[in-house]
Amino acid sequence: MPSVTFLPRGVRTAVEPGGSLLDAAAAAGVSLFAPCGGEGVCGECRVRVVEGAVEQEASGALSAAEIAAGWALACHSRVVGDVTVRVPETSETGAQIVTDAAADAGRGAESPLEPLVFRLCVPVEPPALESSLGDFDRLRRAVRAAGGPREIACGLATLRTLAAALRSGDSKVTVALGRPDGDAPAEVLRVEPGDRAGRATGLAIDIGTTTCAVQLVDLKSGRVLGTASDYNGQIARGLDVISRINYAKAPARREELRALVLGTLNALTEQACRAHGVPPAEVDGAVIAGNTTMIHLALGLDPEFIRLEPYTPTVNRPPLLRAREFGLAIHPEALVAFAPGVGSYVGGDITAGLLRTALAAGEDADPASRPDEPRLFLDIGTNGEVVLGNREWLMACACSAGPAFEGGGIRCGMRAAAGAIERVRLDPATGVADVRVVGGGKPRGICGSGMIDLLAELWAAKRLEPSGRFNPGRCGDRVRPAGASARDLAYTVVPGARTESGEDLVIAESDIQNLLRTKAAVYSACALMLKRAGLSASDLAQVYVAGGFGRFLDLKKSILIGMLPDLPLDRFTYLGNSSLAGAREMLLRGAARRTVRELADRITYLELNVIPEYMEEYTAALFLPHTDLSRFPTARGMP
Amino acid sequence: MPSVTFLPRGVRTAVEPGGSLLDAAAAAGVSLFAPCGGEGVCGECRVRVVEGAVEQEASGALSAAEIAAGWALACHSRVVGDVTVRVPETSETGAQIVTDAAADAGRGAESPLEPLVFRLCVPVEPPALESSLGDFDRLRRAVRAAGGPREIACGLATLRTLAAALRSGDSKVTVALGRPDGDAPAEVLRVEPGDRAGRATGLAIDIGTTTCAVQLVDLKSGRVLGTASDYNGQIARGLDVISRINYAKAPARREELRALVLGTLNALTEQACRAHGVPPAEVDGAVIAGNTTMIHLALGLDPEFIRLEPYTPTVNRPPLLRAREFGLAIHPEALVAFAPGVGSYVGGDITAGLLRTALAAGEDADPASRPDEPRLFLDIGTNGEVVLGNREWLMACACSAGPAFEGGGIRCGMRAAAGAIERVRLDPATGVADVRVVGGGKPRGICGSGMIDLLAELWAAKRLEPSGRFNPGRCGDRVRPAGASARDLAYTVVPGARTESGEDLVIAESDIQNLLRTKAAVYSACALMLKRAGLSASDLAQVYVAGGFGRFLDLKKSILIGMLPDLPLDRFTYLGNSSLAGAREMLLRGAARRTVRELADRITYLELNVIPEYMEEYTAALFLPHTDLSRFPTARGMP
Repeated sequence: MPSVTFLPRGVRTAVEPGGSLLDAAAAAGVSLFAPCGGEGVCGECRVRVVEGAVEQEASGALSAAEIAAGWALACHSRVVGDVTVRVPETSETGAQIVTDAAADAGRGAESPLEPLVFRLCVPVEPPALESSLGDFDRLRRAVRAAGGPREIACGLATLRTLAAALRSGDSKVTVALGRPDGDAPAEVLRVEPGDRAGRATGLAIDIGTTTCAVQLVDLKSGRVLGTASDYNGQIARGLDVISRINYAKAPARREELRALVLGTLNALTEQACRAHGVPPAEVDGAVIAGNTTMIHLALGLDPEFIRLEPYTPTVNRPPLLRAREFGLAIHPEALVAFAPGVGSYVGGDITAGLLRTALAAGEDADPASRPDEPRLFLDIGTNGEVVLGNREWLMACACSAGPAFEGGGIRCGMRAAAGAIERVRLDPATGVADVRVVGGGKPRGICGSGMIDLLAELWAAKRLEPSGRFNPGRCGDRVRPAGASARDLAYTVVPGARTESGEDLVIAESDIQNLLRTKAAVYSACALMLKRAGLSASDLAQVYVAGGFGRFLDLKKSILIGMLPDLPLDRFTYLGNSSLAGAREMLLRGAARRTVRELADRITYLELNVIPEYMEEYTAALFLPHTDLSRFPTARGMP
Repeated sequence: MPSVTFLPRGVRTAVEPGGSLLDAAAAAGVSLFAPCGGEGVCGECRVRVVEGAVEQEASGALSAAEIAAGWALACHSRVVGDVTVRVPETSETGAQIVTDAAADAGRGAESPLEPLVFRLCVPVEPPALESSLGDFDRLRRAVRAAGGPREIACGLATLRTLAAALRSGDSKVTVALGRPDGDAPAEVLRVEPGDRAGRATGLAIDIGTTTCAVQLVDLKSGRVLGTASDYNGQIARGLDVISRINYAKAPARREELRALVLGTLNALTEQACRAHGVPPAEVDGAVIAGNTTMIHLALGLDPEFIRLEPYTPTVNRPPLLRAREFGLAIHPEALVAFAPGVGSYVGGDITAGLLRTALAAGEDADPASRPDEPRLFLDIGTNGEVVLGNREWLMACACSAGPAFEGGGIRCGMRAAAGAIERVRLDPATGVADVRVVGGGKPRGICGSGMIDLLAELWAAKRLEPSGRFNPGRCGDRVRPAGASARDLAYTVVPGARTESGEDLVIAESDIQNLLRTKAAVYSACALMLKRAGLSASDLAQVYVAGGFGRFLDLKKSILIGMLPDLPLDRFTYLGNSSLAGAREMLLRGAARRTVRELADRITYLELNVIPEYMEEYTAALFLPHTDLSRFPTARGMP
């Protein structure tokens, strides 16, 4: 069988003759974007053939010049012999920096630590002839005597270890326990001889459509020990939830997607644990937040009906699982809990994220003190979600924002990882970019916050028309045709001489259209929600912005491009990855676990797809900053 | 590799040269008794070499004549080439008749049916755009609306089937639910399209040291559909609990024993289900009763500390499991519940058995009506257990009775299966036996009830001395040396001309010693319990006798041989396999499940091993009927 080698990682895989390069990449564990699902239209899965040749099918996504230069679409290339291809660096995986700004902005942080899983070191009375207590009964008594839960329960796997653990010669054992909901008995997760209660760790996990993040947390102090993140391994099978759902039609493909995301989570877990000397098998529990489709795919549930009207998921509140059932490579009996979702398009990532806001009315909140000013929460990921309300009422909607701010669908786009341009200033006269690169060094691509900067700077300098097309008269020789078609112009942000790859970092008009669609989706969802509630933007006491833009999000520039409502900057809070932070709150605090359920109950879901006004709002927002300039006085007042 | 063929079943297996015939039998699925654990002393695993030869090690259990006739001990025979052996019919497996006399003697039968698992056929509202309810939420509402449990819970495996089941085109689904303890949510075991609630079945299972029984029960009517029983596959690894525990020292051997008993249960399940057209995968639940060692071995728990002072089991109340976790081949999500045990030597078989007696004070019993007369419950199996008390107090003890009444350790012994002599009358003059054979036809062996008859008849006719030795002057030519030693005489019960195998059915003095040890263990346990309680046998209002003797137990003869206390016959109730019947009660009735837990809590365990008087009582009881004849006025008055 012919073999395919993927550079720069050098991984090699054997393929059947005639197999697609995209399948070969998946088999080799190389993540290639394929947002169009392998239709040959998005051009995202392009690779450069370095040695050997592939058989290319016609597609409109590559110019003749690109094909001549060795570029090929992985989805439309068939392997006919040994071949070596280079994956563009902007698509490559690497350690992503997950922002956790305003880590304690939410109110949950004030409530006491009461982790989902905890350890108790207890002395166990020796067995006695006078009593017919079994090992389990003695353990229950010991836990009770130590002030632990009155009732405990123990599954078969743990029960099998009990006799040996209680007879190690040490008079004490350490019990890892899962904290019960309500009056249920606490679950004994494992029992070990001696005192091992000094360190207890858990994971907070965010499964994003594009990016996954795993955070190792010290359960005794609440301290974050480390975070690892990477692209969700499923991106090779579609870039947004709809293409994933389409891909997942057959049970074998559902199983493939489940295995892909678990592969990502387990690699990240290993990475986060290793960096802190914690064996993964020592981790006692995890809380997972993610959108409803991601959770369905991770659980191996059929996501089909999320896509079809009336958009019904199988489950909004997945049951508490053991790590072994879920497939997470921590202690097999560790508990895995999920943030509760609201519906098919407002998932646990949103309810968890809300924990970081004043919209989360904790159980210990003084009812009289509940503010009734409306607040807005935006989570801008591949799916965008907007929640509007106060502590009395909450409504939510979702929009398909696309992966543009996470690097998807943009030729120079990348995640907020090392080498990403996170800030851009353009010299007003020359248009030369002054950039700030994550981790220093030469840039490899541009992440979400850099895109927003770039868009705002280009527009403010009138190098960009409100329609998103370049004004060649203002751009000089920094603009040239992006590909085969002279109708798609590209602006050179960083010339090849100063980039990591040696090639120009450019942004094309087609990229800008993707960015405009994303910002329009987000803004129009906000606008429609406000209209439905009979409010205007100025009524908002606070706007929370969450998403994987990078460490910094320039709020002023986000307003300038028309993504966020035009409000004084002090009304904004940037939360970074609030889904991950919320999962951590749930891992650490009983109050957060109760509050998140209450939030899920309170949220009313608004289905935008069936509201005709949404399309009008969206179309009006596809300009810089908006067709209705009265909504953006700040932008109107610009030079 | 050489192959070994076992007749009469004709099963064949390949073995490493030099491997033991006993291991080959286990590999071939042929159950051979090996009560001594393969030490070559009991002679139980004897087989006849029909073709080829084996290499025999010296052992004292076979006479030179027997070896010359082709007999070999499987445990002491090494396979050196292809060989065919015949397993004696008395050791063979066959359908055992499990008595279920006095099926409704217990009071549980009066309480309403409230099975552990049940089915509901419910209409489920279609998904709607206005609601963001998931499939699980809709199912929960439907169950609630149909008058089912208010809260339900659903594991991952069942969740994965939900989307398809709710969209089959049928507006109704059938939900199999596990009935919760207390306020816990009901467990959804499975969901199927359409109305499948018409038939629901469960299993009652008794795991005995020697014999296992599986009963298929209709959960809607409470009717027993069928029962299958067979030797516990573990008997090849030791005949009593102590030899099994000794065998189970290494984890691989524990796993072997677990697989052996599950193999037996699954074969019996298949057999019971097939006979009634019920696919095993349609069975929704099972309740299992067994002694503490059997339950530990079936669960894969280390039984070691049951054997060692202070005799501490890992668990007295095993958790509720799913069939898939336990390894039972019914529906993988079916519930498997266990009767609660009291301690290492009073297990769930006893608490379940007590459900069949007036000692079980059901929760709905009028407290004022609780009788305070003492009652005695005896379960005579390989382990014998005795419970004494009334509805106010209960004490229990255990004794090692041995497998004699189930056919173990007796050369003509067999289970109460087809071909077993279950009744014996000896002609007073000639000593010729008039026998009744289970299923009619020629006898193959003698089961427990036949043994008791035989012993009593031989003794009453003074053919047997009180010591258990034959009186040759009274036996004539029916007595001859049993084997190589002239010191062990054997009495011909049925001459070869009238037996199935064509060989004489004989009972030897060594067999009688085994029977005496069994009856002495049981009687002395009863006597000691009464003494401890300050009672005499005549204070007993009722004596319940349980065990696998066969369909009939001649109570008068059981008294004559000194096994049961000498009381008027109307004070006795023979319950048959009360462990199985109690498991069925637990399967069918919530009241029984609650009562059995209460019973387990109330019983005080008495450890006979540490009471010196027990040995005295035991030794005094090793005679027919007893050294103290004043305790057996009926026997004293005999001719």
